Amino acid sequence: MNPELRKDPVTGRWVIIAGERGQRPNPFRTYAPAPNQVEECPFCPGRESMTPPEVLAFRDGREDGGGTGAWRVRVVPNRFPALRIEGTLDKRPEGLYDMMRGIGAHEVVIETPDHDSDPARYGARQMVDVIGAYRDRTIDLLRDVRFRYVLVFKNHGAAAGATLSHPHSQIIALPVVPARLESELAGARRYFDYRGRCGYCDILSQEISDGRRLVTQNAEFIALAPFASRFPFEVLVLPRRHDAFFWTLAKHQVEALAEILQDVLRRYSLALKDPPYNFVIHTAPPGHPGPEVYHWQVELMPKLTDVAGFEWGSGFFINPTPPEEAARALRDLERFMDVPDGHLLPGPGKA
Amino acid sequence: MNPELRKDPVTGRWVIIAGERGQRPNPFRTYAPAPNQVEECPFCPGRESMTPPEVLAFRDGREDGGGTGAWRVRVVPNRFPALRIEGTLDKRPEGLYDMMRGIGAHEVVIETPDHDSDPARYGARQMVDVIGAYRDRTIDLLRDVRFRYVLVFKNHGAAAGATLSHPHSQIIALPVVPARLESELAGARRYFDYRGRCGYCDILSQEISDGRRLVTQNAEFIALAPFASRFPFEVLVLPRRHDAFFWTLAKHQVEALAEILQDVLRRYSLALKDPPYNFVIHTAPPGHPGPEVYHWQVELMPKLTDVAGFEWGSGFFINPTPPEEAARALRDLERFMDVPDGHLLPGPGKA
Repeated sequence: MNPELRKDPVTGRWVIIAGERGQRPNPFRTYAPAPNQVEECPFCPGRESMTPPEVLAFRDGREDGGGTGAWRVRVVPNRFPALRIEGTLDKRPEGLYDMMRGIGAHEVVIETPDHDSDPARYGARQMVDVIGAYRDRTIDLLRDVRFRYVLVFKNHGAAAGATLSHPHSQIIALPVVPARLESELAGARRYFDYRGRCGYCDILSQEISDGRRLVTQNAEFIALAPFASRFPFEVLVLPRRHDAFFWTLAKHQVEALAEILQDVLRRYSLALKDPPYNFVIHTAPPGHPGPEVYHWQVELMPKLTDVAGFEWGSGFFINPTPPEEAARALRDLERFMDVPDGHLLPGPGKA
Repeated sequence: MNPELRKDPVTGRWVIIAGERGQRPNPFRTYAPAPNQVEECPFCPGRESMTPPEVLAFRDGREDGGGTGAWRVRVVPNRFPALRIEGTLDKRPEGLYDMMRGIGAHEVVIETPDHDSDPARYGARQMVDVIGAYRDRTIDLLRDVRFRYVLVFKNHGAAAGATLSHPHSQIIALPVVPARLESELAGARRYFDYRGRCGYCDILSQEISDGRRLVTQNAEFIALAPFASRFPFEVLVLPRRHDAFFWTLAKHQVEALAEILQDVLRRYSLALKDPPYNFVIHTAPPGHPGPEVYHWQVELMPKLTDVAGFEWGSGFFINPTPPEEAARALRDLERFMDVPDGHLLPGPGKA
């Protein structure tokens, strides 16, 4: 069957039913050991023909990446897309249910030509290229009026859902807004209506003066362990300056975001011994009527505990690691961190 | 630290921060290989002193389980509780955050004296005892005015979060309503306000007449693959008759629920080769002002795919198995099923 988007009639949550993805080598256990031998990796240089044609590449030769030399970052359509790019949405009911065709884009960001590179050890320019690719592809995909949201995320390590070990991340353009974002937007609206301010701006202000949950910071961003963290060592990266939309990042902000992401990933790598992890960019959808209400952010989650079914079924989480302890453990690493790019700023423990 | 309940200030989601659970043997990977040797199992007969004193037991000797013979089902407090039973909630702000002490109950239902028993193969009476224990403990816990919700769930298999292999399930009494339930209650209210009927009653009626997503049924319950299933082979068991509250089950409904759960678990076992799975009972909270709005239910989820971080971060799911295919695969098993208890009714494919 072609992919479909289906809506739960009670909760309003949309799901992709992607029948054809079942044709992937291992449809059920997506964290099964993946072909991570460099010999057969479709993301390595020289095997560009194994992927669909690229939609974006940054190449050596010009400062803006538009040169003709070797690629540094490539973005290609996913070979096993969960959504199809062609067609109309064809929204329709099926009795009391709502559905539409699974129209969308599903792209892979190949973050580096180096198969064995560790994102926690990229040089400064590499991560700037990756963030720049996220931003540029998001802007391009949002030109398509069918798409109401662009989801940017990274699964690192087999246990976190990565099916290939060559460093990569993913971009999914959707004709609907994901449930978690709808819930954040609604909550942010309630907070704003009650208090007249952005809730995340208030969180920033309280966390900076409190200090116990701060992980690291730079001129543009703060990384903190959220007060009500669901998972051990969960980290939220918030821009200091209020903005609802991720893709409005200026050049110096791309650099600052690259720096703080590298910093957090290096801390994960040291404190948790190269854990599997995920990160997801949260942004208001294009045209959101209340840009003063939402504050875009990056959520990072090392995959240390498995999530039991009751947490899925209930939305209720038990976190064995207080965020204050996680933040302290991540802050106190500075003396162990080599700083090859000279980009690590002192954490709040030293400020 | 003592456990705390903390609320996310934007989304309103509560989390247990359970510092002391970190003292369990393996705080991070809760699905790590567990001590499943019968020789050291604290749930086996003869080792009752290894658990805290039981709060309920059904014993041989009287038809109602109140005899003095060997126990058939035992309920004991969890040795590593995520919540404490003693104390006041002490609700308080911390700047813009809300928190309270982690007061609640965390109990383990030891479902059978037989360490190697498979819940998919319990006799009829065994599962009736288990459901009866869920109901009786829920009623008892809700007498405590501090508790606003009782969460009943089962993790089966290490990959689904079970840390001991002796068949057991868990009961958590909470002073707050879990986020997923709040979202279902709110969605059910919206549906009711718009259409004047319970959304789940409408689902039942449409699914029974459609038939493609039906798995199995009996006089009291319907098991179906939800239209917008998030996971492959997700199954929802709905009572045919509208009721908001799980714990009002009459004796014949306990028997019918035991039968249909056994039936679904046997189908999982056959179709998916004894998969890890979870189930969670969803009910309206006590004193819910709109009992006409919500419809209690049991959600079953085999753990076949790992959930990638983007699904956590976005609330957006990609399901590679259309629920119509899952339902057909589970329905079509009847010729393979041995029916030792004579309790399997024909599925809709034969009706």
